[in-house]
Amino acid sequence: MRVALNADLGEGFGPWRMGDDAALLPWIDSASLACGFHAGDPETMSRAVRQVAAAGVSLGAHPGFADLLGFGRRKVAISPGEIPALIAYQVGALQAICVLAGQRVTHVKPHGALYNMAAADPALAEALVGAVAGLDRGLILVAPAGSALAAAAEAAGVVLAAEGFCDRGYEADASLSPRDQPGAVIADPAEAAARAVAMVRDQAVVTRGGKRIPTRIDTLCLHGDGADAVALARAVAEALAGAGIARAALPELGLG
Amino acid sequence: MRVALNADLGEGFGPWRMGDDAALLPWIDSASLACGFHAGDPETMSRAVRQVAAAGVSLGAHPGFADLLGFGRRKVAISPGEIPALIAYQVGALQAICVLAGQRVTHVKPHGALYNMAAADPALAEALVGAVAGLDRGLILVAPAGSALAAAAEAAGVVLAAEGFCDRGYEADASLSPRDQPGAVIADPAEAAARAVAMVRDQAVVTRGGKRIPTRIDTLCLHGDGADAVALARAVAEALAGAGIARAALPELGLG
Amino acid sequence: MRVALNADLGEGFGPWRMGDDAALLPWIDSASLACGFHAGDPETMSRAVRQVAAAGVSLGAHPGFADLLGFGRRKVAISPGEIPALIAYQVGALQAICVLAGQRVTHVKPHGALYNMAAADPALAEALVGAVAGLDRGLILVAPAGSALAAAAEAAGVVLAAEGFCDRGYEADASLSPRDQPGAVIADPAEAAARAVAMVRDQAVVTRGGKRIPTRIDTLCLHGDGADAVALARAVAEALAGAGIARAALPELGLG
Amino acid sequence: MRVALNADLGEGFGPWRMGDDAALLPWIDSASLACGFHAGDPETMSRAVRQVAAAGVSLGAHPGFADLLGFGRRKVAISPGEIPALIAYQVGALQAICVLAGQRVTHVKPHGALYNMAAADPALAEALVGAVAGLDRGLILVAPAGSALAAAAEAAGVVLAAEGFCDRGYEADASLSPRDQPGAVIADPAEAAARAVAMVRDQAVVTRGGKRIPTRIDTLCLHGDGADAVALARAVAEALAGAGIARAALPELGLG
Repeated sequence: MRVALNADLGEGFGPWRMGDDAALLPWIDSASLACGFHAGDPETMSRAVRQVAAAGVSLGAHPGFADLLGFGRRKVAISPGEIPALIAYQVGALQAICVLAGQRVTHVKPHGALYNMAAADPALAEALVGAVAGLDRGLILVAPAGSALAAAAEAAGVVLAAEGFCDRGYEADASLSPRDQPGAVIADPAEAAARAVAMVRDQAVVTRGGKRIPTRIDTLCLHGDGADAVALARAVAEALAGAGIARAALPELGLG
Repeated sequence: MRVALNADLGEGFGPWRMGDDAALLPWIDSASLACGFHAGDPETMSRAVRQVAAAGVSLGAHPGFADLLGFGRRKVAISPGEIPALIAYQVGALQAICVLAGQRVTHVKPHGALYNMAAADPALAEALVGAVAGLDRGLILVAPAGSALAAAAEAAGVVLAAEGFCDRGYEADASLSPRDQPGAVIADPAEAAARAVAMVRDQAVVTRGGKRIPTRIDTLCLHGDGADAVALARAVAEALAGAGIARAALPELGLG
Repeated sequence: MRVALNADLGEGFGPWRMGDDAALLPWIDSASLACGFHAGDPETMSRAVRQVAAAGVSLGAHPGFADLLGFGRRKVAISPGEIPALIAYQVGALQAICVLAGQRVTHVKPHGALYNMAAADPALAEALVGAVAGLDRGLILVAPAGSALAAAAEAAGVVLAAEGFCDRGYEADASLSPRDQPGAVIADPAEAAARAVAMVRDQAVVTRGGKRIPTRIDTLCLHGDGADAVALARAVAEALAGAGIARAALPELGLG
Repeated sequence: MRVALNADLGEGFGPWRMGDDAALLPWIDSASLACGFHAGDPETMSRAVRQVAAAGVSLGAHPGFADLLGFGRRKVAISPGEIPALIAYQVGALQAICVLAGQRVTHVKPHGALYNMAAADPALAEALVGAVAGLDRGLILVAPAGSALAAAAEAAGVVLAAEGFCDRGYEADASLSPRDQPGAVIADPAEAAARAVAMVRDQAVVTRGGKRIPTRIDTLCLHGDGADAVALARAVAEALAGAGIARAALPELGLG
């Protein structure tokens, strides 16, 4: 039983920073880097690649909608036909920045509204997975088990890392609770840590109503932008260690 | 004696188009595609890649400053250290879109103010050429002979395609005349065609003052956005044919 | 019986143009100018203001979503609380550019997805109308009769100019047919002209199914970006004249 | 002898924040708000207007270049003819947001590279001051005494608030030292506070070399984005009080 702790890093833009990437890095195994559309710019990405590589953490792309203002969290009407170029552009940009740094992109995790929309819509999911496979068949897709993305990955022979969120509440259909609902965001490090251990050990998520839903969990997402992000990450990492759950970066989980 | 006619294509953005790419394609050998910073977006780039490939024209990246409003033609203060990520991001984005389309990026031509600044500044040129070489040692750099870019390419062992402009005037130092100067832009197809033949045959450019400056010319740039762009391109192509000058795409010129 | 022909102008951005504003201006009475979010930039707006004023056509603001890539036509999730600043920012920007040119903004017409969303959603409509009234109680709101925007305008005492589209098909609920439906876009100038006369004379719209729905029509929108935009505008203007229907700019229709 | 302490606020964008506006507000008299081009968006601006108004601090516009990535600090080639629309757009946007909040814009302070370029270039300065005067003759211009902006303001009858920087070093020509020079940025609160008192009392700036240059000082700028921004602001405010120097918001300084 192993799990990868992942976090979204490099989510600044130009003069702005988000979260404290350096403080989070010691507690995670894999980092998904913004690729310029919801956050990130070439310099920010380049800096993040070097920082992540120096920490020995694996690197992934975190492509999203072209919506800096809404941080990629607003749904944008998109057709499946537009997905491949949207994904290729952002993943390719990060791949090239990694090439210059002697690094490699080993996973792709869609961001924000794109993640949620593709998780729920088979046509978008198929287009997205097709683009990932077309770019590099070795890329791991990070997405929730049971989602349209997971199904598309299985159909296309793309390796899935099934993701859970230990700092977010779940609805009865195993989808994430909307952020404006009570219990949607878990800010307490101890509570998130306890959830993390239970999610990996039981391979299940728990709804806001308290129902347990069996769900494959390969990787847990830690958000970097909350007030207690680092304390929460540390609590989760220490609780997993205390429960005897080993950790590894996504490419080392042996998911293939 | 052979020459590649090149043009900058895919320079629309979102709902906007620039020039008539389809009408220009029959008259050119190599196309440089905008990569999202001065123009271009994933869909526009994807459409352009397919269109260019269908015409049997070779594909290159045309990275520029992140300045849609100024179309990348305004000088932006930049340090050499910022160049590699700027280039890698844009070239990588196009490379990935090409991968999905079964195509390849075979040259890089910096755009607008970035082209002019790197042509004149050895530190910027070295950074730019280093990024190109770091991404793919087979990439051809399109730049003026005698420029800092050409010198950096030679030093780094990067293949240069020496570029001339048959629809632009030259200054006494063999640099392009600023667009607001009289004689800086040649709109007459016949005049541009005559210049094109002379430039290739004589391997020289002619200044606004009428002086001939010996300059290696491997490729001539045709601008796609003028009123008579297509007529001009056709006139140049026909004049070259009439003068017995053969044409080939950049990777087939045997420049290596 | 009088009608204002209106069109959306100034919808270029930076180096890009959309439609032929100069050719359209002789055939319209009122122009709605893009305000920088779906199109337009300060220079483009300033140029459009001078051009519109020189043609003796009245000026309005055409605020939209911050989505250049999607030209403001993509729905973006927005809450009513975000509407006032979105509207004020764009209308205020145009008002100030008009002040420098000695002109005045006399109407506001929301653009694209914002128009459609606010036409259908009472809370968005109320927020939008409240912002318009808060900026200048003399501003005329351009919106469809029967819409949530029309209702909000009536409730707030804001003058409505009821808009119809003679080059677009209608659904059974008097909403515009989605652009991807057959019959949604009328490209034939003669057909659009006949519709224009009937819409004003009968104060009604006709659905794609042929049903006539009584609807107040004060102003007809002519799109500037189609291939035959100018021919269509001219045909409409001439047909209205032939039918004895007078035209006037929005502020001269006496709607108050 | 009175002085206004001013700071640049509202310099976030979308999900990003810069500095701690709430903590800075108690120590300043006038705030210059980003207007969407180098920072700021309608929501951020609206929030800042309400926050500043609640603190009883006067409001100004802080227009800059359209360069989020470079935070408006990079020089962009611009002609005087482009300045009026650039200024009007941004000031008008903020004016309208203020109208909805029952507030008023009482000063204009250009931002970053635009401030520096217009301070040094008479043609840009004249265009900028002309736009400010054209929008509202009561607007106060914040600019350095002795600059081209100050001269243009005097020529146009625009009220100048002469600005000094107590946390920045000066060159021998009374211009600000470039940020990358030693002594260009004063991070120590006590040192900045001592400078502030001396600058107002002596109506002079001191160069990095220690030379005192007589200069009118009506207002001191406090930067909000440094690590010790709030401590520095408090130290300056307390030192001024300790030296018996009264403070007032820009419109209450009686500069007219």
